[in-house]
Amino acid sequence: RRRIEWSPLAAEKQGFKHFMLKEIFEQPRAVRDTLIGRLPQTRADADALDFGNLAGLDLATLAERNKITIVACGTSWHAALAGKYLIEQLARLPVEVDLASEFRYREPIVREGDLVLAISQSGETADTKAALQEAQRLGAVGLAICNVVDSSIARAADHVLYTHAGPEISVASTKAFTTQLTMLTMLAVHFGRQTGALADARAGALLDGLREMPVAIDAVLGVQAAIKIIARRWVKARDWLYVGRGLSFPVALEGALKLKEISYVHAEGYASGEMKHGPIALIDESVPVVVLALEGPGYHKTLSNLEEVRSRGAKIIAVATAGDDQIGDVADDVILVPKVDPFLQPILASVPLQLLAYHVADLKGTDVDQPRNLAKSVTVE
Amino acid sequence: RRRIEWSPLAAEKQGFKHFMLKEIFEQPRAVRDTLIGRLPQTRADADALDFGNLAGLDLATLAERNKITIVACGTSWHAALAGKYLIEQLARLPVEVDLASEFRYREPIVREGDLVLAISQSGETADTKAALQEAQRLGAVGLAICNVVDSSIARAADHVLYTHAGPEISVASTKAFTTQLTMLTMLAVHFGRQTGALADARAGALLDGLREMPVAIDAVLGVQAAIKIIARRWVKARDWLYVGRGLSFPVALEGALKLKEISYVHAEGYASGEMKHGPIALIDESVPVVVLALEGPGYHKTLSNLEEVRSRGAKIIAVATAGDDQIGDVADDVILVPKVDPFLQPILASVPLQLLAYHVADLKGTDVDQPRNLAKSVTVE
Repeated sequence: RRRIEWSPLAAEKQGFKHFMLKEIFEQPRAVRDTLIGRLPQTRADADALDFGNLAGLDLATLAERNKITIVACGTSWHAALAGKYLIEQLARLPVEVDLASEFRYREPIVREGDLVLAISQSGETADTKAALQEAQRLGAVGLAICNVVDSSIARAADHVLYTHAGPEISVASTKAFTTQLTMLTMLAVHFGRQTGALADARAGALLDGLREMPVAIDAVLGVQAAIKIIARRWVKARDWLYVGRGLSFPVALEGALKLKEISYVHAEGYASGEMKHGPIALIDESVPVVVLALEGPGYHKTLSNLEEVRSRGAKIIAVATAGDDQIGDVADDVILVPKVDPFLQPILASVPLQLLAYHVADLKGTDVDQPRNLAKSVTVE
Repeated sequence: RRRIEWSPLAAEKQGFKHFMLKEIFEQPRAVRDTLIGRLPQTRADADALDFGNLAGLDLATLAERNKITIVACGTSWHAALAGKYLIEQLARLPVEVDLASEFRYREPIVREGDLVLAISQSGETADTKAALQEAQRLGAVGLAICNVVDSSIARAADHVLYTHAGPEISVASTKAFTTQLTMLTMLAVHFGRQTGALADARAGALLDGLREMPVAIDAVLGVQAAIKIIARRWVKARDWLYVGRGLSFPVALEGALKLKEISYVHAEGYASGEMKHGPIALIDESVPVVVLALEGPGYHKTLSNLEEVRSRGAKIIAVATAGDDQIGDVADDVILVPKVDPFLQPILASVPLQLLAYHVADLKGTDVDQPRNLAKSVTVE
């Protein structure tokens, strides 16, 4: 009798080798599900983003004398860093970001009327929940962005925004991150219209870009084969650096974390401008540097930072915009993503870095979905 | 005829093998010079800290509706992170910290009456100067903490506080960092007395602690031989992690940066609470983890984080408080520092990590004072 190899888990992978890969490929659907119900179907009304009434939140006072504090851990903290940039730029509301594990023990300064925004995929992250509750106790309105419905953090917050990414099985978070970014972008546009900081036409263009995002992500997923080749070229590297500026800085941090988590390679993210203040000493020809070099504000500064590390012998893997004619001259490898509004780049640029980390880990043969030492949701403090 | 080996630089090293080591050993003197002129000689009057009048700065309004933004790069950014903690805890004034290279391109949100605090040893850091000037243009009062007198940033700011650490020749900053911390601690106490958040007796105790700091640093320098032995034990490690909580978090970041800068070893700092969210995957028996485990708030949390990494096989080098009876059971190596007030620990705990980095680099034979790829002051953007 032949033994039949079958596991319920494998069946659920729908032909993908790992849950992580499956979840990476689910992102067009996941992002669409984040948008549904909040984003109006047509451009007709840029003010029709539906965030309910968020009772208790007074944006006019907030703009004048309060602040938004975003608390999170790990990957969600990277989404928070992008959220700061999005909300400050699009809505001109001041945002502070803190690691939940630091915030809760800091005796944080919270003013009556502040907004605290807690981000957690599982909704069970112990430090994030405690940070949210501490801020609410001090007089802040609490808003949560969670994936898991009716989770502890969702229940503890005054208001909750669900990302509807669907179950995430892989320990390394992928679709949870891009859907958090999607939600934060919508929220920033919504706040920007409420505060008047964001013009109608600009808001409309950003919402159009969000509507097209699932298709753009599909295009990035289409270049998997090229990313796999890059992964093979660098699979033996022991140290990696990821650098970016502005909205690309958290993308760099998250890209490095993905590689570290699942391949056990020491990858570290840096703000491009910080390289000269120390990390550049690490650089030699054995260290690949992943440079987020997307068109938009900061592009030329990024190119000059890129030249600095290249002149020290670094090998450059650039994530750049399709149509960029300069990047081919200065990078050793390039991953091109479709041109989108600079505010929407983090969602899109995160995807090839997930694939890069995945293929490095898969080539190394690590347990991609269950990396050593890690748990899916960190419910202990 | 014998050739006489002599160089003017060697002469200035006063018998030390490198400028870095000389500057590490100058810290008792440097910290004393930072204190002189501001700190009253006796405890008689805790309110007699002399910061001039800092014209234009209205702390009452600041507490109610404004914030302090600290901008810096590299090592100074680590001092800034400690400064946030010190000022928020001791003076209850909200503080945001930003990398200067990010802040200046972020279209930052600054309110009339905000305080911007720029920290730079050289006073010539291009990004920090631009960030300071941008904030001042937007209505903030500008205060600089510099070492080099009459430097660009000192001249650009409305007010300047000099650390008087003396010339720092080594590219890797040591005494500049601890004197920045010293100045920030005095400033936090001063603000705390002004806002009324800090009781007279508590302020007096902190100032006493500062007066005794040069002697405490001397005691730490006295254990150099033990640190050298630890360095020899771990000199072949390729990856290091440094972890700390609260005020020890920036100390961990700075400790990792020192090692990275001069030994080209990939060392990375993390907030202790973040380890479970990814970096713990890196841990195996080849990765030393430097744990800041000083007595005070967070000590027990830190011990439990330490157990987590230890159970994954990590080797623990603990920086702990003299008299700690528990740490010997859970650490592979321990560096003990004298017991001081928890708010003064960053100054003291930074010193053994400088020595650890120095001896690892010296054993590796790198060019300690002039590490590859780095310049002493980053005057380009």
